[in-house]
Amino acid sequence: MTENLKIAVVGAGRMGADHIDRIHTRIVGASVSAVVDIDLDRAGQAAAGIPGARVFASLEEARAAGGVDAVLLATPGFLHEEALIKALEWDIPILCEKPLTPDAATSWRVIEAEQKLGRQSIQVGFMRRFDADYAKLEQIISGGDLGDLLMLHCRHRNPSTPPGFTNEMLINDSVVHEFDVVRYLTGEEISSVQVRLGKPSRNAPAGQHDPQQVLIETTSGVLVDVEIFVNAKFGYEVGTQASLEDGIVDIGLDHGPVTRTAGRVGGDVTPGFEERFGDAYDREIQSWVDAARRDEVGGPNAWDGYATAACCEAGVKAQSSGEKVAVELNEKPELYR
Amino acid sequence: MTENLKIAVVGAGRMGADHIDRIHTRIVGASVSAVVDIDLDRAGQAAAGIPGARVFASLEEARAAGGVDAVLLATPGFLHEEALIKALEWDIPILCEKPLTPDAATSWRVIEAEQKLGRQSIQVGFMRRFDADYAKLEQIISGGDLGDLLMLHCRHRNPSTPPGFTNEMLINDSVVHEFDVVRYLTGEEISSVQVRLGKPSRNAPAGQHDPQQVLIETTSGVLVDVEIFVNAKFGYEVGTQASLEDGIVDIGLDHGPVTRTAGRVGGDVTPGFEERFGDAYDREIQSWVDAARRDEVGGPNAWDGYATAACCEAGVKAQSSGEKVAVELNEKPELYR
Amino acid sequence: MTENLKIAVVGAGRMGADHIDRIHTRIVGASVSAVVDIDLDRAGQAAAGIPGARVFASLEEARAAGGVDAVLLATPGFLHEEALIKALEWDIPILCEKPLTPDAATSWRVIEAEQKLGRQSIQVGFMRRFDADYAKLEQIISGGDLGDLLMLHCRHRNPSTPPGFTNEMLINDSVVHEFDVVRYLTGEEISSVQVRLGKPSRNAPAGQHDPQQVLIETTSGVLVDVEIFVNAKFGYEVGTQASLEDGIVDIGLDHGPVTRTAGRVGGDVTPGFEERFGDAYDREIQSWVDAARRDEVGGPNAWDGYATAACCEAGVKAQSSGEKVAVELNEKPELYR
Amino acid sequence: MTENLKIAVVGAGRMGADHIDRIHTRIVGASVSAVVDIDLDRAGQAAAGIPGARVFASLEEARAAGGVDAVLLATPGFLHEEALIKALEWDIPILCEKPLTPDAATSWRVIEAEQKLGRQSIQVGFMRRFDADYAKLEQIISGGDLGDLLMLHCRHRNPSTPPGFTNEMLINDSVVHEFDVVRYLTGEEISSVQVRLGKPSRNAPAGQHDPQQVLIETTSGVLVDVEIFVNAKFGYEVGTQASLEDGIVDIGLDHGPVTRTAGRVGGDVTPGFEERFGDAYDREIQSWVDAARRDEVGGPNAWDGYATAACCEAGVKAQSSGEKVAVELNEKPELYR
Repeated sequence: MTENLKIAVVGAGRMGADHIDRIHTRIVGASVSAVVDIDLDRAGQAAAGIPGARVFASLEEARAAGGVDAVLLATPGFLHEEALIKALEWDIPILCEKPLTPDAATSWRVIEAEQKLGRQSIQVGFMRRFDADYAKLEQIISGGDLGDLLMLHCRHRNPSTPPGFTNEMLINDSVVHEFDVVRYLTGEEISSVQVRLGKPSRNAPAGQHDPQQVLIETTSGVLVDVEIFVNAKFGYEVGTQASLEDGIVDIGLDHGPVTRTAGRVGGDVTPGFEERFGDAYDREIQSWVDAARRDEVGGPNAWDGYATAACCEAGVKAQSSGEKVAVELNEKPELYR
Repeated sequence: MTENLKIAVVGAGRMGADHIDRIHTRIVGASVSAVVDIDLDRAGQAAAGIPGARVFASLEEARAAGGVDAVLLATPGFLHEEALIKALEWDIPILCEKPLTPDAATSWRVIEAEQKLGRQSIQVGFMRRFDADYAKLEQIISGGDLGDLLMLHCRHRNPSTPPGFTNEMLINDSVVHEFDVVRYLTGEEISSVQVRLGKPSRNAPAGQHDPQQVLIETTSGVLVDVEIFVNAKFGYEVGTQASLEDGIVDIGLDHGPVTRTAGRVGGDVTPGFEERFGDAYDREIQSWVDAARRDEVGGPNAWDGYATAACCEAGVKAQSSGEKVAVELNEKPELYR
Repeated sequence: MTENLKIAVVGAGRMGADHIDRIHTRIVGASVSAVVDIDLDRAGQAAAGIPGARVFASLEEARAAGGVDAVLLATPGFLHEEALIKALEWDIPILCEKPLTPDAATSWRVIEAEQKLGRQSIQVGFMRRFDADYAKLEQIISGGDLGDLLMLHCRHRNPSTPPGFTNEMLINDSVVHEFDVVRYLTGEEISSVQVRLGKPSRNAPAGQHDPQQVLIETTSGVLVDVEIFVNAKFGYEVGTQASLEDGIVDIGLDHGPVTRTAGRVGGDVTPGFEERFGDAYDREIQSWVDAARRDEVGGPNAWDGYATAACCEAGVKAQSSGEKVAVELNEKPELYR
Repeated sequence: MTENLKIAVVGAGRMGADHIDRIHTRIVGASVSAVVDIDLDRAGQAAAGIPGARVFASLEEARAAGGVDAVLLATPGFLHEEALIKALEWDIPILCEKPLTPDAATSWRVIEAEQKLGRQSIQVGFMRRFDADYAKLEQIISGGDLGDLLMLHCRHRNPSTPPGFTNEMLINDSVVHEFDVVRYLTGEEISSVQVRLGKPSRNAPAGQHDPQQVLIETTSGVLVDVEIFVNAKFGYEVGTQASLEDGIVDIGLDHGPVTRTAGRVGGDVTPGFEERFGDAYDREIQSWVDAARRDEVGGPNAWDGYATAACCEAGVKAQSSGEKVAVELNEKPELYR
C-alpha cells in the first residue's frame, strides 16, 4: 500500500483550491505534490504554503517531473476526457469532479478506455453519497422495513447563481447531482426525464428560466420530482422526501442552535454548499485516498458518470421540448456489474 | 337577523352525523331541527338526544312540516343537484358538502339557478380554507413580503381507504380539496391537469392505482404537484410547501408532545381528518351559520364548486390519458366577481 | 338540566370582557344575563351588543333582579371571598378566576363554607388543565408506559408585565399556574418551595427581580424547577419538560407555518396567553357550563384553589428568605377526596 | 514547526484506544509513536496496525526509547499528577483527558509546576468547546445581540452507567463537563454548587442516586441548573437552554432523517457520546496537534482544569450536605490571564 499518496490537483479554481486545502489540512495518507493550471499564478496561489507542492502548466509536465501517484481533476467538464484518457494510460487513480464528461458519447469513450485498462480506476465526484443524511436514507430504503420506495420529492435550492449560469448548466451542474442521488437511492437506472417551466422568479437573470421542475422516472416506475431553484435567495437547501409503502422519510433539514427572539423561533439556514456538504467532501476525498492507496475505487465509478451524462443530455432536450424524453444507455459492461 | 338558525341536515351518514353533533354541542346560534335520510332508522339514531330534531325521509317533507331555515347537504354528490335547486327555489341558505355536483355540466345548472335567484345562497364545504395553517399561508402569499408564488408541493396522505374507493374517487373525493386549495392560495383558476401513475403500493386495493402524482398549472403559470397517497398506512397528512421568490413556507407539520424513549425522538402522527380538520369544520359551520343568519355566504361559493368540478373532470380524464388535460370554464357570471 | 345557563359575570376588566365575548359567541348552552362592575360604564361597554345582558354595580342587585343561574368571578383576588360566600349561600354554580383567594387562611374559610353546603359548587380557573398539550402530558405520565415521573422543568415567559406588577404578583399571578400544573401532573401535593434570585434582566422594571427560579418538591420527591421570566421580550412561552424513568417528554413548543427566508428558518413565537390558551379557555368555560347545567363541577375545585394558595404563600416567603419553605396544608375534607 | 508530532498515548483503555485510532486515521501532522499501559497486552492490541507505534509499560521507558514529542494522557484521573509533572519537566506538550487531577490541591501543584516552566504546556480534554453547537452558543452569548446571559438549563443524560459508577463519579466524570461548559459560556468562575436529590429512578444501580439536579451560580449571578441523569435509558442527550435578556437559545437537539411510520413521526436519538461528540474529539485533537507543533496550547488550559477540580470538590460535598457549597479558588496566576 502506498504510504503517502502524492496527488496532482488539476485546476486551481474554487473547487481545486478547496480540495488542495482539504488534502493539506484534513486528509490523512495523502499530500498535494503538484498543482496544475494553465494560469500559473492561480496555481501558485493555491499551492502557497503547501510543503512539496510544485506548480505546472500541464498534467504531462507534472507527471514527467515525477512524484505524481494520483490525479484529482477539478477543471471544467469539457477538459475532462483528455485528462482521464491520459491518467488511464498511466494507470494511476483518478478522482474526477462531476461531470465525468459533458455528454454520453464522450463518457462512453472513457468507459471504453477504462475497460481496456481492465480495472476500475476512476472515481466520480458525486459527494452526496458521502453525506450522512443521504447515506442513512439509502440504508432506510434498502433496509426494506418501510416497504418499497414509490416516490422521491427532491429540492435543490441555491441563493443565487454566478454570472453566465445558463439553463443548460442548471441541468448539467445542479440536477446532475439529483440524477446521481436518484440512481443511488433506488439502485436503478433512470428511464425518462421531463421538465416543466412555469412562472419564473424575478430574481432569475436574463436567459435563465428559474425555477424549473424536473420529472424523472426509474426503470421500476419510481416517480421523482425535483424543484431546481438556483436563485432562491433565502439560502442553500438540498434535501429529499421519500414516500415508501409504509412510511415517509425526510432528509436535508437544517439544524444547529434554535433561537427565540423578537417574535420568531428558529435557526440559521445553511448558507451554501460548503457548509452543507463540507463533511461529505472530506469523507469523499478520504475514501478515495484510502481506496487509491490499495489501487481501488472508493465511490461512484465511471459507469455512474456515463449514466448521469446520458440523463443530463435527456434533461437538456426536455427543457426545450417540454416532453418526456427517454434516457438511452448502452449495455452495462462486465467491469461495472 | 335570525335568532336561532333551524337547520335541516340532509344525509345521516358519517359526515352528516358529525355535523349534527357539531351543531348541537359546539355551534352558537343554530340548532338541528330536522334530520333527513331515506333510511329513517339512521336518521333517528343521528337525531337521538337532540331536543327539537325531527326525522324525515325527504327534504320536502321536512320543509312542509315547518321549522327549516337552512339546509346542510351531507349526501353523496350525485344527489346534490336536485336538493340544491329545491333550496334555491325556497330561497334559504345552503351549506353543500363537497362536491357541489359530480361534474361541470350539472354544477353549471346550479350556477344558473342561483343566478336566477340573484343572490349568493350556496356555500360549498371546502373546510381547508378555515384551517389555521392554510389561512396563514394564504396571508403570507397574498401579503407579498416573500415575492410572487412560483410552485406548490402538496401532499395528501390517508392511512387507508374504505372498500369501493375507486381511482375516480381519488380525484373527486380527495384531490378535489387540493384543487380548491390551489385556487384559494393562488387566487387564480387552474388551467391544466396531468396525472403520473408510477409504481403502485402493495397496500393499494385491487383496481386502485395508489399513489398518484397530479400536476397542476394555474393561469399565471404556478406549477403544482400533488402526491395523492390514500393507503399510506403511517397516518394522515395533509400539507403544502410553497416556493415563493424570496422564501419557502411549509404547513401541515405535526405538533403535540415530543417524546424521547427507546432510542427515538418524536411525536404522534395525526391519525385522521377529524383530528386534523376538526377545528376547521367547527369554524366552517360557525362561519356559515353566522353569515346565513344575515342572509349571506360565509365561505367558498357555487362558482368555487363549479370550477373544482371542472378540474375533477379534467383530472379523471388525465388519469387514463397520461396527457396534460386543459380545464375549460364558462365565463364567470357577474354574481361571483 | 338547565336549558340555558344564565350567567352573571362579575368584573368587566380584560378577563371579564373576554369571558363575556366568549360566552356570547362560542359557548353553547349559556348566555350572559348580567355584567357586574362597580364601574358601570365599563360594565356597559362589556355588555354592549349582548342581547339580554343587564348591567349592575353589585352581585346582590343582579341576583335580586332575577335571571342569574350562575356566577363567573373575574375580579381581583382580594374581592373573591365575599362573592364566593354569597354564591355558596345562594347555592348556584361558580367559576372563580384564579386565585381562589389571595392566601391560605381565606381560602380555608371558603372550603368551610362549601362543606356546609355539602356539595362541590366552585370551579377554579386553572385553564391549563384544558390545554391539549398539558392534558396529553398528564395522560402520558399517568399512563405509566414511561415509568415514574422524576423531574419537571417548567418555563413561564411573558414578553413584558403591566405597570405595577410586583415580585409577589410574579408568584401569585404567574407561578400559581405552575403550582396547579405540578399538582395536576403529579397527582400529589407540593411539600416545599424555594426561590433563587440571580442576575436580573435590564428589561425588568424597578422593584421587580426578573427572572427568578422557583424550586418545588412534591410529597413523593418529584423535583421541579420553574423559570419565571416575565419580561422576556421575545414573546410568550409556557411549557414543560418531564423526565420519567424511561423517557423525556416536551410540551409547549411553537407550531404553525415554517418559513425559510433571508438566511433564517423558523416560525412565529406565540405572542401572548390569548393565542396560547384561547382554546383552553373555551374548553374550560364550556366544561364548566356543561357541568353547571347538571349541578356539578367540571374542573379544578376549591381544594385545588386552597392548596395553591398555600403554595403561593410559601413562595412569597421563599422569595425573601432564599430558603426552602415548607407548604403546610390542613387535612383534606371528605368532600374533596 | 514540528513536521510530524510523535505522540505517546498513556492508557490503552476505551478512551486511549479511541484516541490512538483517531490520530492514526483522521489527524493530520501527528502519529502515535508509543502506547503506554501497565497492561502490555492491552497496549499491544491498541497499537496493532499502527506503523511505528511501540509498546511500553511506563512513560519513562517510552521517553527514554526516543521518538516522543508529546504526551496524550488517557489514564484514570488519580494517575495524572505524576505524569503531568514528568512531562512538564521534559517540557513537551500534553493533552490531559479530564479531570486534570481528582481534587483542587493536586491540581494546584500542577499549576505551580507549569508556572515554574513559565509557559502553558498542558491542554485539558474538555472536548465540548470543540462541538459546533456549543461554539455557536458561545458566539451568540458573547456577541451580545441578545443582551446578557441570565440562566442556563443544562441536561446531561446517559442511557446507563458501567458497573461501579458511584455518586461521586456522577459529579467528577459527568457534571465536570457542565462545570467547564458554564465557565466557557459565561467567561466567569463558578461561585457555588448545590445538589438536589429527589425521587430516584428504579433503573439506578444500588448505591447510586440518579437523577440529581445540580444548581450552580457564577460570580455575576448567572443561575444554572443541571439535570444529571445517567440511567435515562432512552439514549444519550447533552444540551443546554440559555435564557438571555432578549432571547432564548437551545442547543443539543437531535437531527438526521425524520420518519413517519406506524402513527409516529420522528428520528433516532443519539445513542452515545461517540456519536454526539465524535467530531468534537477530532477537532480537539487536531487543535492540540496544530498548536503543539508550534509549542502552544490549543484549548482549555491547566487553570481550567484546576477551577473545575475545585467545582467537583464542592459538588461532592454538596451531594451529602444538601446545602449550597462555596467554591474557593486561589488567585489566578499571571500565566493564565
